[in-house]
Parts: sequence; C-alpha cells; structure tokens
Amino acid sequence: MTQKTGTLYGVGVGPGDPELLTLKALRVLKEAAVLAYPKSSETASENESKAYSIVRAAGVEGNEPLELLFPMTKDSNALQEAREVAAASIIERLKQGKDVAFITLGDPMLYSTFSYLVPLVKEAGAEVRSVPGVTSFSAAASAALVPLAESDERVVVMPASAGEEEIRRRMGEFDSVVLMKAGKALDRIIDLALALGVADSSVFASRVGWKDEEVVRGIGKLKGRKAGYFSMVILRKARA
Amino acid sequence: MTQKTGTLYGVGVGPGDPELLTLKALRVLKEAAVLAYPKSSETASENESKAYSIVRAAGVEGNEPLELLFPMTKDSNALQEAREVAAASIIERLKQGKDVAFITLGDPMLYSTFSYLVPLVKEAGAEVRSVPGVTSFSAAASAALVPLAESDERVVVMPASAGEEEIRRRMGEFDSVVLMKAGKALDRIIDLALALGVADSSVFASRVGWKDEEVVRGIGKLKGRKAGYFSMVILRKARA
Repeated sequence: MTQKTGTLYGVGVGPGDPELLTLKALRVLKEAAVLAYPKSSETASENESKAYSIVRAAGVEGNEPLELLFPMTKDSNALQEAREVAAASIIERLKQGKDVAFITLGDPMLYSTFSYLVPLVKEAGAEVRSVPGVTSFSAAASAALVPLAESDERVVVMPASAGEEEIRRRMGEFDSVVLMKAGKALDRIIDLALALGVADSSVFASRVGWKDEEVVRGIGKLKGRKAGYFSMVILRKARA
Repeated sequence: MTQKTGTLYGVGVGPGDPELLTLKALRVLKEAAVLAYPKSSETASENESKAYSIVRAAGVEGNEPLELLFPMTKDSNALQEAREVAAASIIERLKQGKDVAFITLGDPMLYSTFSYLVPLVKEAGAEVRSVPGVTSFSAAASAALVPLAESDERVVVMPASAGEEEIRRRMGEFDSVVLMKAGKALDRIIDLALALGVADSSVFASRVGWKDEEVVRGIGKLKGRKAGYFSMVILRKARA
C-alpha cells in the first residue's frame, strides 16, 4: 500500500488578536497532523514564535508541534540554508502522509517566510495550499478608522527602511503609503510627514491586535519615541 | 433613564468564501442587534448584496436585517445623498441603543462604502469601530501561490482603469501591481503584461473565494476573455 503524500498549508493567523483568525485557519490548524511554526532563535522565551502564541491564545495547541528555525539575518546563504532545513523537516512529515500547517503572522503571501518554502516543497512533489489572513496594515487602519483607499485611490506597501527621497516621491503619487517595520526609522518618518503636511492624518501602529497594541492617529506627537520591530506608519494624505 | 447610544461596527467579511470570515466578524455579527448590508439596486435578486450572501452562507441571518441602497453611479451628488440616507437609517437605530454591524466585502478600510459612513456617524456622536477582513488580493495570491511581496519588495494596489502609461511605470518601480476591477481593462492589461514580459508570472483572479472562482497563473492565455466586475490582475515580476 502506498502512503498518500500530505499537503503543506500556509496559514495566515492575522496580526495578533486571536479573534482575527479566520474560520478556515482554525479548521486547518485543528485538522493538520503537524503544526509548524517559525522561531527566530533557539533560546529565550521572549523570542518564542509570535504566530504560535496567537494560535494557542485561540485555543489550538496543534497535534504535533514542529519548531522551525529562521534566524534573523541578512546573510542570504544562512537564510537559504535555514529554508532548506525547514523544508526538509516539512517534506519528511508530508512523506509520512501527514498534513502540515505552517503558521505565519498576517498573510502568507505578504512578507512571509512561507512563500520561500513553496517552491522547495513543490519540487519534492507535495501539494501546497495557502490560507490567506488579515494583514497588520488592515488591522491598523481599522483600529485608527483611517481608510487605506477609497474610490479610485492607490495604496503602496513598502519597507520603512526606504530612503527619504523615495518615501517623499511615493507620497506625491499615492493617497496612502504603508511603511512596514518602522521601528528604527520612526523619527525620520515623522519629520518627513510634518514637512509634507500629512502628520495629522497619518497613523502609527505598534503590535496591533496584541494586548499592548498602540495605535495613534496624528504622528507628530510621537517625535522622539522609541518603537519596536512590529511597528508601522500609514502615511495618509489629508482630506479636504 | 437615558438610553445608551449603540456602536456602529464595520465588519469585513472577506472576499467570498464564508470560511474566510474571522472569529471576530462572526461574533460581532451574531451579537449586533442590527445587521446592515449594502445593495446596489432595489430590484433583481442577482443584485442582492454579495456581502450578505457570504454572511448567510456562514450561518448568520442577523437579528434585524437593514438593507441600505448604494447605487452604482459616478454621480457624486447621488452618492453623497445615498450615504447620508444610509447614515441616517443607521443613526436612528444607534439612538435606540442598538448596535449596528455594517458588512462589507473584503476589508472595511480598503475600497469600502463603510469608510464614507464613518465621519457621518461620528458626527452624530456615536461610537464607530471596524473589524478588519481578508482582502480579495490576499485570497487571490494565496489561491495562485504567488507572493505579493517578499523581503524588501514593494506592492501597489490600484484600480485597473488606470492608464497604460501609469501601469507600465508602476511595473518598472514595483515587484507586484494589484489591479482591482480588471473586467473591462483585461485585454489591455494582458497586452501590456506580454509586452513587459510578466504575463507568465502574473495572475488573473475572478470572484475569488466564490464557488465559481477562477484563478489563473499566466495570463497570456486569457486574451479575448470577458471578465466581470469582481476580477483582478496581480502583475508580478518574474523571478530569476
């Protein structure tokens, strides 16, 4: 008897609030034999997987938890090696006929490690599916009640590490500019927002959907503030 | 005894699949005294609210359904009047102490009628909250397993009605360009994608999350096809 190969599911668990899991995400997580979650470091509980903590807060432990290490590094060789090791762990379980749910913050197709695993697992002949999730910028816009786009407007999502010249140009062209991972760049972004006259209509959001969420409309008052990795700014043009 | 004013909730119900409702959306819809849904025409069952059909497929009828008319028109006076009439209907119920859940396809802060109601209802002194939802482009990217953004990439979301010159320029600058409401523009977009060499890596999606969903990777083969209002194209640069 040949064993049927399992399916890999990328499951978006949303930005932080366990209630922002979809019904589909919850079902797939409960049904999958293996619940795989990314961790950035082997040590320290504060580095524990944020995606896994959301899932546990929603009442799911996972049948067989599988921890996968993705180091926080810009070294592309180290990243590629970590992805290959993770994919091999997943493929091993898929070949045992187990379905694997790989959880990811927000949405699996937007800045997620999952998208790097897709070609590696497909190459091994296994089926891959993805369950979309609520993005952090949608949650931030909702919390601040600031639209990302209305009517024929355009919105761009980009890293906050972009240069001032680029951010300035984007704000000239677009109605909303979502700047992800705004931590280190916050002061620089606030200065720019003040100069462009959009500070009052723009939004700062940190750890949105978590208990210590901070969502502030009008970012000028945040000058000098420290902000963490899971911070973003939605630059938004003032309405008439 | 003074009556406590109710709260208006904008509730994103996702792109179509009732399983893509969040747990929070489901809870708010069940708890709210009034379930308000937008309709584009007073007649014809085919014009019935798509958002309401998702909610009913998820098993929620709503305690007191409230139909609100939003005509499909570009006439800004007619639009503004429809919004004011809708807001007045909602405010009437809020003043009776009822919570109102206004459902919206996808996410309430992205191309949704809800964002126009926010200032009108706030002006009347009522509290407004928003429950984010899964967007159609996240669902399309998941269905096609095509990432919207990886690493430091940028993604832009814009209407497909934009001119060829603008779309061409955006694809020069960005890794992914999401073109919403691609129906009428489809052939023109395919020609452009072929010219730019991105047709094979790009995605067409129609009614994603519905039973008649169509998601196609590689859009060149769709030349000459008719496509409806709820269609989109994700132009995506080919990877090395």
